Amino acid sequence: MDNKVRKPYTIVKYNGETLSSVQDDIAIEFPLTIHVDGEEFATIVCSPTHLEELVIGFLASEGLIRLHSEIASISIDDNHGFAYVNLKNKKVINKDLYSKRFIGSCCGKSRQFYFHNDVRTAKTITNTTTITLEKCFHLMNMLQHQSADFRLTGGVHNASLCTNDEMIINRTDIGRHNALDKLYGYCLKEKITRSDKIIAFSGRLSSEVILKVAKIGIGIILSKSAPTSLGIDLANDLGITIIGFIRKNQLNIYTHPERVSGTELD
Amino acid sequence: MDNKVRKPYTIVKYNGETLSSVQDDIAIEFPLTIHVDGEEFATIVCSPTHLEELVIGFLASEGLIRLHSEIASISIDDNHGFAYVNLKNKKVINKDLYSKRFIGSCCGKSRQFYFHNDVRTAKTITNTTTITLEKCFHLMNMLQHQSADFRLTGGVHNASLCTNDEMIINRTDIGRHNALDKLYGYCLKEKITRSDKIIAFSGRLSSEVILKVAKIGIGIILSKSAPTSLGIDLANDLGITIIGFIRKNQLNIYTHPERVSGTELD
Repeated sequence: MDNKVRKPYTIVKYNGETLSSVQDDIAIEFPLTIHVDGEEFATIVCSPTHLEELVIGFLASEGLIRLHSEIASISIDDNHGFAYVNLKNKKVINKDLYSKRFIGSCCGKSRQFYFHNDVRTAKTITNTTTITLEKCFHLMNMLQHQSADFRLTGGVHNASLCTNDEMIINRTDIGRHNALDKLYGYCLKEKITRSDKIIAFSGRLSSEVILKVAKIGIGIILSKSAPTSLGIDLANDLGITIIGFIRKNQLNIYTHPERVSGTELD
Repeated sequence: MDNKVRKPYTIVKYNGETLSSVQDDIAIEFPLTIHVDGEEFATIVCSPTHLEELVIGFLASEGLIRLHSEIASISIDDNHGFAYVNLKNKKVINKDLYSKRFIGSCCGKSRQFYFHNDVRTAKTITNTTTITLEKCFHLMNMLQHQSADFRLTGGVHNASLCTNDEMIINRTDIGRHNALDKLYGYCLKEKITRSDKIIAFSGRLSSEVILKVAKIGIGIILSKSAPTSLGIDLANDLGITIIGFIRKNQLNIYTHPERVSGTELD
């Protein structure tokens, strides 16, 4: 299989004693410029796999579409790194709003921080999907076994869409948020119900990651990494259960423990 | 000392046998909105330390200033996360250009990828500063000893400005690029010569990181992590020496080995 996540480079290696010229696998970083209705919308750098899903997920995450059916056509030029999207209903895109900070009047501190676009797209999660501790370890184990690309390059992230029993699909990217957008695009394209799903993830849980999980519409995220303060504050507000630092037989439940069954404290 | 990099949260910990409610240190993620001459310019999320240096470095990196003296005034409201900057010479800021992809006609493949802003600000490095293998290990060791915050939160990056002998300053941030912008801002504010300096860094060497090193004007970057393909391509073009995957007594020289003394291959 043609591997698009890594490729060999000739480098100089020092093994502690001698220097030698060797081949080493390097994570591919690929610029993709997305045009929407003939206008340049954004350039993202990514691992060049599942680019159509990435573009669909990215546009949904940015609030340009809600359903896959709103896209009239999409074509990817993966030699030069361009995606051309036409929407069924042309929109006036006010790009300024995408990077403007939204200052809410709400009481919760974390609500003070959103971009305008996030206010429209990141909805509070109300589903009651649950998971057991045992399944947390099981799903993270499966995620880790997917990551040959990580072991060989030391530089990619993995995200898996799961039921509380098994892994459905796994996506890899050098960008944490791109791996999630690839899952989102897959869900939209294949019309997958999200409210009963779980995401298993390799990366840190920052505000951007938690906002994306809310946009996708999923209530439980598992990670081997830790959340940030704003990640925790947003997850509290948005009704998302963060289970992080899953290592060996230990883990931390940072928010909304009611979705983890059998965790009533004494 | 008041620690602004991490703060305690109450979480539920599972230690493999029992669940308990414990205090855990979490990396602070802080939104900072930068206004320039009364206009909202950008919002970045960061660790709230050295915010003035961060703002100076960020504005230089974005090409709004070249020297610290171009700033008439700068004030930081670190309760609410706002920075207000006035420039001596007002500029018409064409924000669109900052995110527009620049398609060059140059032969090197990597030159195909820049944002318009980077073309103006990322210059080829021509200095002949060198480093020995021994000093690479020495500086990375010193960097690792700085990182109590990393050990306690599992979630921040470190960047140090070094001579080829010792560490000058160390900056920490949840964002890799912010840690570098804090170094850049320090250099501009204190009028530090950069051509003879080295950066020691904890994070992955993506295109964005390498472009920032070129903007700062430094020729050698050390990291415990790996570069991406585009990071290597840009470093080759821009004359930057990447020494990565520095672990124990091993390391890889990815680009421009001529700056590493005593590395002539047999």
